[in-house]
Amino acid sequence: MLIKVINPNTTLSMTKMIGESARAVVGPGVTVEAVSPSMGPASIESHYDDALSVPGVLQEVLLGEEGGADGYVIACFGDPGLLAAREVAAGPVVGIAEAGMKSATYLGRTFSVVTTLGRTVGHTWELAHRYGVGAACAGVYACEIPVLDLETDPAARSRILAACRDALVRDGSDVVVLGCAGMADFCVDLSASLGVPVIDGVAAATATVQALVTLGLRTSKRLEFASPAAKTYDGMLQGFAPPR
Amino acid sequence: MLIKVINPNTTLSMTKMIGESARAVVGPGVTVEAVSPSMGPASIESHYDDALSVPGVLQEVLLGEEGGADGYVIACFGDPGLLAAREVAAGPVVGIAEAGMKSATYLGRTFSVVTTLGRTVGHTWELAHRYGVGAACAGVYACEIPVLDLETDPAARSRILAACRDALVRDGSDVVVLGCAGMADFCVDLSASLGVPVIDGVAAATATVQALVTLGLRTSKRLEFASPAAKTYDGMLQGFAPPR
Amino acid sequence: MLIKVINPNTTLSMTKMIGESARAVVGPGVTVEAVSPSMGPASIESHYDDALSVPGVLQEVLLGEEGGADGYVIACFGDPGLLAAREVAAGPVVGIAEAGMKSATYLGRTFSVVTTLGRTVGHTWELAHRYGVGAACAGVYACEIPVLDLETDPAARSRILAACRDALVRDGSDVVVLGCAGMADFCVDLSASLGVPVIDGVAAATATVQALVTLGLRTSKRLEFASPAAKTYDGMLQGFAPPR
Amino acid sequence: MLIKVINPNTTLSMTKMIGESARAVVGPGVTVEAVSPSMGPASIESHYDDALSVPGVLQEVLLGEEGGADGYVIACFGDPGLLAAREVAAGPVVGIAEAGMKSATYLGRTFSVVTTLGRTVGHTWELAHRYGVGAACAGVYACEIPVLDLETDPAARSRILAACRDALVRDGSDVVVLGCAGMADFCVDLSASLGVPVIDGVAAATATVQALVTLGLRTSKRLEFASPAAKTYDGMLQGFAPPR
Amino acid sequence: MLIKVINPNTTLSMTKMIGESARAVVGPGVTVEAVSPSMGPASIESHYDDALSVPGVLQEVLLGEEGGADGYVIACFGDPGLLAAREVAAGPVVGIAEAGMKSATYLGRTFSVVTTLGRTVGHTWELAHRYGVGAACAGVYACEIPVLDLETDPAARSRILAACRDALVRDGSDVVVLGCAGMADFCVDLSASLGVPVIDGVAAATATVQALVTLGLRTSKRLEFASPAAKTYDGMLQGFAPPR
Amino acid sequence: MLIKVINPNTTLSMTKMIGESARAVVGPGVTVEAVSPSMGPASIESHYDDALSVPGVLQEVLLGEEGGADGYVIACFGDPGLLAAREVAAGPVVGIAEAGMKSATYLGRTFSVVTTLGRTVGHTWELAHRYGVGAACAGVYACEIPVLDLETDPAARSRILAACRDALVRDGSDVVVLGCAGMADFCVDLSASLGVPVIDGVAAATATVQALVTLGLRTSKRLEFASPAAKTYDGMLQGFAPPR
Repeated sequence: MLIKVINPNTTLSMTKMIGESARAVVGPGVTVEAVSPSMGPASIESHYDDALSVPGVLQEVLLGEEGGADGYVIACFGDPGLLAAREVAAGPVVGIAEAGMKSATYLGRTFSVVTTLGRTVGHTWELAHRYGVGAACAGVYACEIPVLDLETDPAARSRILAACRDALVRDGSDVVVLGCAGMADFCVDLSASLGVPVIDGVAAATATVQALVTLGLRTSKRLEFASPAAKTYDGMLQGFAPPR
Repeated sequence: MLIKVINPNTTLSMTKMIGESARAVVGPGVTVEAVSPSMGPASIESHYDDALSVPGVLQEVLLGEEGGADGYVIACFGDPGLLAAREVAAGPVVGIAEAGMKSATYLGRTFSVVTTLGRTVGHTWELAHRYGVGAACAGVYACEIPVLDLETDPAARSRILAACRDALVRDGSDVVVLGCAGMADFCVDLSASLGVPVIDGVAAATATVQALVTLGLRTSKRLEFASPAAKTYDGMLQGFAPPR
Repeated sequence: MLIKVINPNTTLSMTKMIGESARAVVGPGVTVEAVSPSMGPASIESHYDDALSVPGVLQEVLLGEEGGADGYVIACFGDPGLLAAREVAAGPVVGIAEAGMKSATYLGRTFSVVTTLGRTVGHTWELAHRYGVGAACAGVYACEIPVLDLETDPAARSRILAACRDALVRDGSDVVVLGCAGMADFCVDLSASLGVPVIDGVAAATATVQALVTLGLRTSKRLEFASPAAKTYDGMLQGFAPPR
Repeated sequence: MLIKVINPNTTLSMTKMIGESARAVVGPGVTVEAVSPSMGPASIESHYDDALSVPGVLQEVLLGEEGGADGYVIACFGDPGLLAAREVAAGPVVGIAEAGMKSATYLGRTFSVVTTLGRTVGHTWELAHRYGVGAACAGVYACEIPVLDLETDPAARSRILAACRDALVRDGSDVVVLGCAGMADFCVDLSASLGVPVIDGVAAATATVQALVTLGLRTSKRLEFASPAAKTYDGMLQGFAPPR
Repeated sequence: MLIKVINPNTTLSMTKMIGESARAVVGPGVTVEAVSPSMGPASIESHYDDALSVPGVLQEVLLGEEGGADGYVIACFGDPGLLAAREVAAGPVVGIAEAGMKSATYLGRTFSVVTTLGRTVGHTWELAHRYGVGAACAGVYACEIPVLDLETDPAARSRILAACRDALVRDGSDVVVLGCAGMADFCVDLSASLGVPVIDGVAAATATVQALVTLGLRTSKRLEFASPAAKTYDGMLQGFAPPR
Repeated sequence: MLIKVINPNTTLSMTKMIGESARAVVGPGVTVEAVSPSMGPASIESHYDDALSVPGVLQEVLLGEEGGADGYVIACFGDPGLLAAREVAAGPVVGIAEAGMKSATYLGRTFSVVTTLGRTVGHTWELAHRYGVGAACAGVYACEIPVLDLETDPAARSRILAACRDALVRDGSDVVVLGCAGMADFCVDLSASLGVPVIDGVAAATATVQALVTLGLRTSKRLEFASPAAKTYDGMLQGFAPPR
């Protein structure tokens, strides 16, 4: 089984770390390929960044289809391009916000999300409602660390830990979901310190894709997620035109 | 006042018709500029098309900011790129699904949407819920006419009329919202035939932008919709990098 | 175009100010007629006041139909008599709570309402849910200034400003909606001080009525909002009997 | 204990029948006083009728306070004036739509409402949502018999029975709630014919008021439902001014 | 009329107190039989306790059917076994969480629940949503007194009073609902101290059962709540097998 | 890894089949132990059966804890005892309705459930809402085959297929979820015939438990799902008393 894990931003050091998180949870015989797109933003911290990461994500899915990928993880907590990717992929496609938050619902009544920047809080709530976990999501908190500083800021770990502690107290929640792929490598330590399950969406999504492929389940092509109809695409994006 | 109406697909005949619908509802002293992007799909009929229309939409908004636009209409019923556009535009940005459905709530308790292809029905429901009109939306119906055939299929008008009639009976609804910018020029006739208000989102969104600009209201830049932070963009999309 | 703006209370100084707010946002060729009813409460601060303002509001709508009004604004934040008025008016009828809160949804993810008395907070939440903006409404706050003191209390402006500041911080919201027609003239200053959009429902509703009339849209008469059937009315209210 | 049952319309034959339904369910020592207001519509079949029945309802509550009523039933399925009445009554006030629908939730998972005219269906749904029974309400059906014809139309009983049968089949529901006080005397027969519980809101509301009074429970006066503040009322309604 | 009040735990001192609360609100000619099951937990403070109280509750209902009970109260705030009991009882069955919270909705816009242990808060919210009062429930608070200490801890009364005070201030709510049958005898005092209605679910449920029986209403046997089909039960529970 | 799959009914032929479905989806090194309880109903087709299956389920979980189980599947579509089991198990516990319906949300916008008896439809909807998939669940359909006839009725397969076909057409849904563990062995064939993903909850729940264990995730013991406090249990159930 080949699972392609797409980091929607172009920062390769993050892609490497994401790949390691994914590889740590797959079974024997499962290959994880972690990639960044050839185009788009270095980090995703706004709706604008999110929207412009999508062409790169879709390009990687199209390449994955040629390369025999059995399923895909979209490894950014905004789940950019998720529904479009489901139309062009044969196998399952899972986002890390989706898998992180849905997995939390198996472990307690409510969870809190701890994310990077305050400006993404609204988007996280929107995803929570879209995924049916709006009632289970007790709160979304930002530690105000930009995505790319997660790797370099020596205080990142302790600030995230503090934000998690505050969230658990304020929300009376059972579980923490980490709101950025760049936090994946903090997950085990945080859980040990906090004494509650802490979910890294990258690992959760990878395990979910593996489970779905094992179950023989893939996106329904009956209606909304059928392959896009062939048509002309213009200008810089003409290469994206769906084939006949 | 300059209102820029962006048809997210690249089909210029549709852009022309959309421009006419918009111009029909603005007051004296308001200029409507109707454009298509330089890149992207010829029509939007899937999540994939929708996602890949967004770079072109955003490019037009960026150009509009240079050109002094006071507000923007995104003239495709999926409202592609709406939230990202709000981050980069100084003035208000309104989508036609948003304005069409919200305007309907002033005219009756429930409305029905009549759209083009069945595969877009799910997306329309998602927008209805996101915009808070999920309870007011009584049903979404497809007439199974591809977007670009709306202009050429001589049966289009009668099939849409029949779909509207069915929807009103089945739903017991008060209002019809047309689910495609390409139906804008059928609106008046349909309303006369059906005896209920029929809403063309292009006109509704244009009137809404004009009203917001007149009211001195624009997107709040306090938090989620602040301008995107400057950063590197790679590859084909590097020109989209937000400036410092 | 003639827009009749009905202040549901009988305090004429407030009616005058409301008329000015409305006139400030209409286009050339639009006349605003601002009136108070001949009967009912001097201010509206309870469900009881609200209910007993309705006969006067409806009388003004009936007079407006004779006088050629093209649309109506109900200028009290409880939107008294809105649905009944839609049955007897040919043109659109819009309430200021409705227009204020719905307009806010074009400008950000969430808004806060700042209103007069704490006892009206529950009613505002009820309207928010009825209008589909319950999720967008982040909080409703009272400054505990009675309606008629808004004009005379020299501290009113600063207390409202303080309440808005608190609301934005507590809610993390994008927009403020003013919860009383009597606050209309504070709107511009508040927005300048707060740095976020502040919405006066009177202006928003007037602009909305103008837009709907321009679009050729009026209340659907198909079902729920058809004209009331003729019947006998007794006692003091016999003059309200719907004509055959 | 004195329970005042207010029929909001002025048709005395209906008031008499309503009084009998109420008296049939009270215990020894409980007096039921059934009245019609001195003003307002002969029947309530629109938002307009509903709104203009409210002054008469409130006048009867004010008279009831002087006359020592321990609680009130508002016996029209639109529950006109319910919240305002709670402000001016010391004891509990219960509407028949409220009590009918809430009582149904003790008897099964879902209920269907069978009402008079199609134009009231939307209002019934609004009440269902306001009362928290929107998910339990499986459907609302009209038999298209005007309120006052319920007493005189010989086919009324059989048409209502047929509407109930259809509703149960279509909705797969457990219980029928009758959507008009004028149907109160059909209730027992319908239940026998249908083999499911059929709820008359008049009886349900009367029993609920008796229960609340027995429990020593009355409307909370802490905040929203405190007595209205004293103020001037003008014109025809000046007699309604809340006293100091 | 015979109402059987089942205390789902096996602590007889509590059963006695519960019986007294129930008897205080029934009319002449109504007998209250208060019982504890022959099996199960001494108090109910977890999902595990709740689940294992259900066989005893159902045994008491089966005995009640033989003994001529007209209706049942399940007197634990988790309402254990409520839906199963409805299948085997001919008359109505009401839980105290259900009746306590639903009754509160007649008395104000919102209520707060004050309960025993923090670990039951999530379950109370789940019930609130299931019963359609999720929007009316403003908050759920624990005073962290174990159920059986309510009778013996001299500080219980004052700690509950303090928790109620805090809840009313924090929630801006109108009514308090006591979240444990063991608090029934504190109800009158608390209401006097707080100046708002305080609801004891035992009294509320008993009054509700009496009302339903008087109204001739019982659980619908049409579908979901029909008697269970006969079948084999094994092992220790074989005596529970539904008879043919 | 040891996953204990508990068939809550006592029919061993079904337990055997369920075990095979579970074993088919686990990785190397994972042992599946499929068991039936020593007590309780032979099949679960009512709330009463469901409630009385719970002691047996919990006994098996307690035995599993002694026997080193790493996680549990509750293999009945009512998910009996799920929350109680989470309190006493150290590892994750997943129900088949929960996993079946949540897994479906990764594969399309909406799903339909096809289940056994009509009387369980309401319970399935309740679970769908509790699990946050109420909006994704487009319909629940019964084929009216009793649980134990699934193994023996030669027409079972074709009747289920027909029910699935109808559901897909009526609901316009993307995925089918089978609403009974006894249908597990029909899953592959149905999917092939229907051309859409068909989900067997047994396989889905087993794969989910395996994924959660691999991720190092287990039920949060912070609050609601902490181990039950020690206390006395009486009568037949005294052996269930939680230990100190």
